Amino acid sequence: MAQSDCIFCKILAGEIPAIKVFEDERVLAFMDINPINEGHTLVIPRRHAPTIFDIEIEDLNAIMAAAKRLAQAIKLSLDPPGLNLVQSNGRVASQIIDHFHLHLVPRWPEDKLAAAMNWKLQPGDMDQIKAAAEKIKARL
Amino acid sequence: MAQSDCIFCKILAGEIPAIKVFEDERVLAFMDINPINEGHTLVIPRRHAPTIFDIEIEDLNAIMAAAKRLAQAIKLSLDPPGLNLVQSNGRVASQIIDHFHLHLVPRWPEDKLAAAMNWKLQPGDMDQIKAAAEKIKARL
Repeated sequence: MAQSDCIFCKILAGEIPAIKVFEDERVLAFMDINPINEGHTLVIPRRHAPTIFDIEIEDLNAIMAAAKRLAQAIKLSLDPPGLNLVQSNGRVASQIIDHFHLHLVPRWPEDKLAAAMNWKLQPGDMDQIKAAAEKIKARL
Repeated sequence: MAQSDCIFCKILAGEIPAIKVFEDERVLAFMDINPINEGHTLVIPRRHAPTIFDIEIEDLNAIMAAAKRLAQAIKLSLDPPGLNLVQSNGRVASQIIDHFHLHLVPRWPEDKLAAAMNWKLQPGDMDQIKAAAEKIKARL
C-alpha cells in the first residue's frame, strides 16, 4: 500500500511531478533530480517496500528487467564508458528515501564518483572472512 | 562459455579456491577476499557475462533472488545497520573482473565506505535532466 509520507509513493500517485523515462505495471523509472552525472536514473517498485528485505521478488525481477533495458538505452543515447548500479538499505548505507530504489549512474572519467568508487582494495584476514561466511551460511 | 582468462570462471570450475556461501544451478555466492567490511559477499552467474549489457535476464533474476536471501542471512548473522548492493560495469565504473558480479556490502557507521557513499547531493539543472531523459527514452 502507498505510504502517505513517502515521496516516491506521491510520485507514483501523480501528486509530485517526476521526469519519467519508463513504466510498466510493476515499476517506474525516472530521473534523479540530484544527479551524480548526466543520465542518473532511478527505478522503483509501484508497491511500497522500504528495502531489499521487504520487496517482493516479482517486483525485484521487474526492477532488474527495467534496469537492463535502461542500461542499454543509456549506453546507446549517452555513451558513458561505465555504469554503476547502486541500491542502498538503511541510513548508514546512505538511503534517504525509504522506498526501494535502484540507482543507475552513468560514469565518465574524473567524475564526482571517481574517488568514491575507488575502494582501495586490501586483502582481508582469511580467518575472519571464513568466520563471517560460516555465520552467514548458518542463517541461509 | 567459461573464459580461460577469467578468475571467476576459474573459481566456478574449481581451479581457484573461494569461500563459498551459496550456490544453485545458475549462480555462486562467495566472500570477497578484499572485503570493504565484514560479510562482504559477491554473487556471480555461472554463465560468463562481463556486464549488465551481456547477462541473460534469467541469470540476473537468479542473482537477485540469491542476493535477497543473502541480504537476509547477513542481517540475521552479522546484524549490520545498513547494506549496499553495488554492481559495476566498465573500468571507469571500478569494474576490475570482467565477469558480472554483484557486491553485497554490509555497512556500519564510520566504516570505509562512509565518505565514499556520501554523494553530497546537489540539485541538477532541470533542462539538462529533461534533455537526458528524452535521449534515453528515444533509445528504449
